[in-house]
Amino acid sequence: MTGDRPPRWGLWGESDERGALNLVTPERVLTALALVTEGRILSLSQPIGPAESTAPHRPNTARFMMRDAGDYAAGARSPDGFRFAEDIVQLSTHNGTHVDALSHAWCGDELYNGHPARIVRSTTGAARLGAEKLLPVLTRGVLLDLVGLYGQPLAPRTSVEPADLQRAYERAGLAPEAGDAVLIRTGWWESASPHDYFDNEPGVSGPAAAWLADQEVSLVGADNYAVEVQPSVEGQTFPGHLALIHAAGVPMLENLALAELAAAGATAFLFVFAPIPLQGSTGSPIQPLAVL
Amino acid sequence: MTGDRPPRWGLWGESDERGALNLVTPERVLTALALVTEGRILSLSQPIGPAESTAPHRPNTARFMMRDAGDYAAGARSPDGFRFAEDIVQLSTHNGTHVDALSHAWCGDELYNGHPARIVRSTTGAARLGAEKLLPVLTRGVLLDLVGLYGQPLAPRTSVEPADLQRAYERAGLAPEAGDAVLIRTGWWESASPHDYFDNEPGVSGPAAAWLADQEVSLVGADNYAVEVQPSVEGQTFPGHLALIHAAGVPMLENLALAELAAAGATAFLFVFAPIPLQGSTGSPIQPLAVL
Amino acid sequence: MTGDRPPRWGLWGESDERGALNLVTPERVLTALALVTEGRILSLSQPIGPAESTAPHRPNTARFMMRDAGDYAAGARSPDGFRFAEDIVQLSTHNGTHVDALSHAWCGDELYNGHPARIVRSTTGAARLGAEKLLPVLTRGVLLDLVGLYGQPLAPRTSVEPADLQRAYERAGLAPEAGDAVLIRTGWWESASPHDYFDNEPGVSGPAAAWLADQEVSLVGADNYAVEVQPSVEGQTFPGHLALIHAAGVPMLENLALAELAAAGATAFLFVFAPIPLQGSTGSPIQPLAVL
Amino acid sequence: MTGDRPPRWGLWGESDERGALNLVTPERVLTALALVTEGRILSLSQPIGPAESTAPHRPNTARFMMRDAGDYAAGARSPDGFRFAEDIVQLSTHNGTHVDALSHAWCGDELYNGHPARIVRSTTGAARLGAEKLLPVLTRGVLLDLVGLYGQPLAPRTSVEPADLQRAYERAGLAPEAGDAVLIRTGWWESASPHDYFDNEPGVSGPAAAWLADQEVSLVGADNYAVEVQPSVEGQTFPGHLALIHAAGVPMLENLALAELAAAGATAFLFVFAPIPLQGSTGSPIQPLAVL
Repeated sequence: MTGDRPPRWGLWGESDERGALNLVTPERVLTALALVTEGRILSLSQPIGPAESTAPHRPNTARFMMRDAGDYAAGARSPDGFRFAEDIVQLSTHNGTHVDALSHAWCGDELYNGHPARIVRSTTGAARLGAEKLLPVLTRGVLLDLVGLYGQPLAPRTSVEPADLQRAYERAGLAPEAGDAVLIRTGWWESASPHDYFDNEPGVSGPAAAWLADQEVSLVGADNYAVEVQPSVEGQTFPGHLALIHAAGVPMLENLALAELAAAGATAFLFVFAPIPLQGSTGSPIQPLAVL
Repeated sequence: MTGDRPPRWGLWGESDERGALNLVTPERVLTALALVTEGRILSLSQPIGPAESTAPHRPNTARFMMRDAGDYAAGARSPDGFRFAEDIVQLSTHNGTHVDALSHAWCGDELYNGHPARIVRSTTGAARLGAEKLLPVLTRGVLLDLVGLYGQPLAPRTSVEPADLQRAYERAGLAPEAGDAVLIRTGWWESASPHDYFDNEPGVSGPAAAWLADQEVSLVGADNYAVEVQPSVEGQTFPGHLALIHAAGVPMLENLALAELAAAGATAFLFVFAPIPLQGSTGSPIQPLAVL
Repeated sequence: MTGDRPPRWGLWGESDERGALNLVTPERVLTALALVTEGRILSLSQPIGPAESTAPHRPNTARFMMRDAGDYAAGARSPDGFRFAEDIVQLSTHNGTHVDALSHAWCGDELYNGHPARIVRSTTGAARLGAEKLLPVLTRGVLLDLVGLYGQPLAPRTSVEPADLQRAYERAGLAPEAGDAVLIRTGWWESASPHDYFDNEPGVSGPAAAWLADQEVSLVGADNYAVEVQPSVEGQTFPGHLALIHAAGVPMLENLALAELAAAGATAFLFVFAPIPLQGSTGSPIQPLAVL
Repeated sequence: MTGDRPPRWGLWGESDERGALNLVTPERVLTALALVTEGRILSLSQPIGPAESTAPHRPNTARFMMRDAGDYAAGARSPDGFRFAEDIVQLSTHNGTHVDALSHAWCGDELYNGHPARIVRSTTGAARLGAEKLLPVLTRGVLLDLVGLYGQPLAPRTSVEPADLQRAYERAGLAPEAGDAVLIRTGWWESASPHDYFDNEPGVSGPAAAWLADQEVSLVGADNYAVEVQPSVEGQTFPGHLALIHAAGVPMLENLALAELAAAGATAFLFVFAPIPLQGSTGSPIQPLAVL
């Protein structure tokens, strides 16, 4: 931010750490619940585990078995016959299907809402705006299915503009509502090879991200690894993250799986967001749900 | 298991890996949604992070910052002004608020439903019944508030019996229904010191666990670290885990925070269960929700 | 092992966990020290860190900064001006320059010297023959420089036979002595691309490994990732590991850097082996030294 | 550093990253080798593994088995009968017996020799003065046995002063020589309980550390966790680290085991220092050796 303070900062108080999740009022929860007709629950998660590929600068997810059936086969004691297995998981909070906490991205010396960036340190993690501050919500989910709109997965590097999003809303027969969790289907997860997935993705432009924030969305997600188009437009770096997370306090959901939701013909539905409240983390793995 | 195959095995097919979560039918989802009147969302998570204590045989949760604001303060490049922070989290899938997957506990050579135990190995993790097989559900949650019933937190080592659970149901004005997520409040989380928390907890007895399974619950949770009373009755080791996970395919939710839910006067409510689908893990961190 | 117990087992007692390192007697230490004329110390380590490539089935080395200068730049307190940085390292004990402990490889149900394999478990690590049992030694090092002998790096998949080793000894003007640490230079580390390094390496055959054991060596190392030729001869898998580690109790040193040693014209020299005594590990990182 | 640049900075060039290890010339290596009479090798390592206690702000060492004998007992494939076990080790580079690299401690904005502190970051580790820059050395080791001198282990919080060190040199019949690795036995490792070990240790004072640096030592080690007395004198924090590492470029060896060396009656001996060249780390585990 060179100069102007984003208009949303301070809207929910100077100490607010919840951002756009504040938009999910009890009324909107009730409205969202009323959308359910079938009682059918869909997971929007991509697989998460050691076998999944990750962005090159992040280590793979690792799972370490601390006790397993092999130990008993090799003679470990099982008191009264009881046996158990347990493991440790090590994962980047930005691998797999996850939410970016509001401490994840910024410019200048301030995070969202003017919180000083310097509180994000090796020793403390994100002392403010960590993943544990993300409010879990049930709200209206809206699928903006660009694959359906354009008849095919978006090509690499395709920039999704405000007009594309508006057209997708119209095709769904919906208008934006405050508190919406907007899920954008680019088709990237299904169409890119694991090797290409972390480069040149289609996604929202900076203006499209800003447009979404203006619609008062609570969450924005997509079926790619950064929601926004890569590479960014010349002279900007991750403008979508700055427009959503930094200026507007909107957490971003990355690496969603949206094909099944699209196949179900879903447009508006109950969306469930229950991240792990990891203290001081800059993100959290999630299993987002759509309930039809 | 001394001989007999548990009657529930095979009920949902020989290859079933979902267990009692199968009981949450679309009808039950709809019924549970209808319980919501206020649109108020309560998290049932205890804090999770490096500062929290853990059982002695499990390492503490760790958070490693891979990039943070300090790096920029020390001169790291921020292209076009963009900055970000990210971290890696390492946690036992049985620390903090979590769900035990159906591969977590067994006796003999078979896991729940007769899956061979030998598929749980260092190299593969739980090749069946891993956390990624847990069905996310929205279902009716029932709070069995033993603190309210007895006027104080249960004393260390208190064994909760079927009659206690029945009394708590009655006090709540409810009868068990198939698919219920049953949450048992012992008061242990609020009353035990962090140092004492992992020993001598009050909790359900083996018979009480079996009684819950007989009520066709989908999930059983408690505000202690193992749901069941510790130490176990002489001659048995973790009989509650065997009755629920192994015999009946009921995932267990441990280290819940239930005081706020009790204070809200909740008895039956919409319960949200959205674990992280960690491939091959024996459990998953969760943020369970109650919606009033 | 199909049947016969290897002749060396029991040689140093039924409970021996030191294997061929027993061959380094005080006399041999003194003899080796007497080889030094210049007081020049050469490291035989390849670089070890997050930037180095690893075999595909092993995760990369990771370094996590727990406190660094950035934290102070971002405002961390420095009492009386004191500042410090610290990190955590996570590494496969078989990545980078390392020694294979005697618990690393076996066939059948017994490790070296008849120790039961079942003591190597998830819960305990290698309860016997772990890295902490490796005796640190100073002994005579011998460089068998096959690159010098054949005028170029060995081609991929080249099998080094006993006759090659004998020729290299002769070229060096040396005869094998009990307790030697034998270092075999194939040229693989210098000639293979990082991408190819973990496949098709030239190295010793099973018979060459057995020949080395018969010379009563204390250690065998090479400038490749497995000492022995890859792939193994049809019908055998890692016969060199079985001949050295399992049958003869000879620890193996992998991923050495030997070019500088060869350039120095070294043939026999003081060799320093000081592994980290990691309790229960199957190997250890090392910085082996040659002193000329 | 408030003002004056330490006199040693620049002594070995402005870009020097080796510090006092430069003092170990080939001549001194030869002199040290000549001290050996028996060919007897003593390890000076305390045990290192998951069972060992650590300072409260550092996580315990962890060992994760990636493959073990249990996996084979549970049915894992062993091609041609070959079996292997491997593990991953995760450790603080300042737990257990280790060396502090010259990037570990400083004051102001400069590390040893004026290297800018800002190169020690989360993203890069210690881009200069990392553990991989530590020169492995063989040099004269000197045991300053304060337990022998005073007839018992030093009491908690005992400050070891220059006069104590001089007296110990005299008792050993030795005078300081440039390049010495000085090992100070306080008796703390043998006398403190694991619980007390990380508090109130006896050790060198700031002036004693400075006196050692003035003797042109190459390394200073002790049988406690920080070499210097804890707590530090009022108004200073870790003055010994600043005098040795920051001002004089002397790496410090912590958590040594010196009882066996003292029992052997050793005073001057060949000392072997072969740290793991961990790129960008602030320290390294080691197995230091004394050769008598």
